[in-house]
Amino acid sequence: MQLIEKRACFGGWQYVYKHYARTLGCEMNIGIYLPPLVEKQKLPVLYWLSGLTCTEQNFITKAGAQRYAAEHNVILVAPDTSPRGEGVADADSYDLGQGAGFYLNATQEPWRANYKMYDYILHELPLLIEGHFPATAQKSVFGHSMGGLGALVLALRNPEVYRSVSAFAPILSPSRAEWGQKAFSAYLGADQHSWRDYDPTELVLAGGKVENILIDQGLDDEFYRQQLCTENFAQACKRMALNPKIRYHENYDHSYYFVASFIGEHIGFHADKLYAGK
Amino acid sequence: MQLIEKRACFGGWQYVYKHYARTLGCEMNIGIYLPPLVEKQKLPVLYWLSGLTCTEQNFITKAGAQRYAAEHNVILVAPDTSPRGEGVADADSYDLGQGAGFYLNATQEPWRANYKMYDYILHELPLLIEGHFPATAQKSVFGHSMGGLGALVLALRNPEVYRSVSAFAPILSPSRAEWGQKAFSAYLGADQHSWRDYDPTELVLAGGKVENILIDQGLDDEFYRQQLCTENFAQACKRMALNPKIRYHENYDHSYYFVASFIGEHIGFHADKLYAGK
Repeated sequence: MQLIEKRACFGGWQYVYKHYARTLGCEMNIGIYLPPLVEKQKLPVLYWLSGLTCTEQNFITKAGAQRYAAEHNVILVAPDTSPRGEGVADADSYDLGQGAGFYLNATQEPWRANYKMYDYILHELPLLIEGHFPATAQKSVFGHSMGGLGALVLALRNPEVYRSVSAFAPILSPSRAEWGQKAFSAYLGADQHSWRDYDPTELVLAGGKVENILIDQGLDDEFYRQQLCTENFAQACKRMALNPKIRYHENYDHSYYFVASFIGEHIGFHADKLYAGK
Repeated sequence: MQLIEKRACFGGWQYVYKHYARTLGCEMNIGIYLPPLVEKQKLPVLYWLSGLTCTEQNFITKAGAQRYAAEHNVILVAPDTSPRGEGVADADSYDLGQGAGFYLNATQEPWRANYKMYDYILHELPLLIEGHFPATAQKSVFGHSMGGLGALVLALRNPEVYRSVSAFAPILSPSRAEWGQKAFSAYLGADQHSWRDYDPTELVLAGGKVENILIDQGLDDEFYRQQLCTENFAQACKRMALNPKIRYHENYDHSYYFVASFIGEHIGFHADKLYAGK
């Protein structure tokens, strides 16, 4: 773990570390916020997954999340959105390749050597965090857009791992929309059966169950109608008797101004679940 | 006024507008946050002045200020840090020319045609804001680093205009430090008498009086000892029986992580003064 940045922030510390990720076969940056209470005790961890084109920097500089993490005593971990580097496959496109890992395990060439973000987030990253920082094993996951998709897929497939999941403007039915179809075709191949493991709507229809889901969607989001398919997911949940809290917000778009406006409520939501029964 | 960005944020709107600034002879971007209460009444204005290399974007994306402006019912205005554009003089340096206007009126070639940020912030910008938005004439000013210098100079020279002034890690004795000496030599010339009008410590020693001053300084700020000269200003204030509130914070550096950590207290401080007697 190589220290890249260390910044005092709301009484705690915002770090950026670089480490060699075995799962991905490359070096990865991670943003980690430790609230003041880690001086006294181990704290639960809330994993943030960012959207297309982001690195670990977008969330830690723009979301204003540290204030609420300090208030609610949760560690925030914000990894990068894909493997990176010269030896890592890439595409000349913002929505495929580096910066667009889609939090899945790729099976197709040239991606399958490095693009294993699902395993990285689920297995390697928590071991690293719990091994190096005063973190308990309690964890929740949230994210934005492609990262909201990743958060829901991880939680729906591993309900015993995550106490709660939330998302801002998540891609909810990727098999039905352009971003998802392009990424899944490249990373997973033409056989759409393999896509179901990474599609929140399909996972719900297949019986995936998570109790604590919060989703916020802006109604002036430029990607809402074409790419996110919020209603597909809502209908699947209704059919399967799942009750996610889905809130629609007039005027809000897809940007970090939207994320910042509601990040406090999301962190409060997760803290309730992470500290439940204590 | 040409609309560049419009983003819902904490129940209000974050705008970026472009306009032709007559004082500067060029087009300028301005970030303007209107809190929800402007739907019902005019509100006072808090002007933010950014530091070296910044545009209007740094503050509006990184400070997390909108939440507090919405809570305290103040409009936030964040202009760019210098005149800009192809016809505007520049230097091959981050601390002189475009992005480094120092909030002064330049008298020297090649700067004096456009570099009139003091007049722009004091006269043209408030007329523009009060003419186009539901703003009252009550105003306060704050800023970061070079912008903290600008805020203090504006308030010390115009105590009847600004209800209060605050600063994060301001350049407090620019005539004594490298950034200030380089800029003042270029913009104002070798005669150091002319520098006194833009040096907060000299303005205090010359009898400048402002009642409501709040200054925050991080003790791990990489520019604290060499460039900011906080103690020079504190001693001048003591000698002249001025009582600014100067707070030193362990661990904090010069970044927006520092600004974000205390921006809520600054906006609360200004709101108290802007709403005093109402």
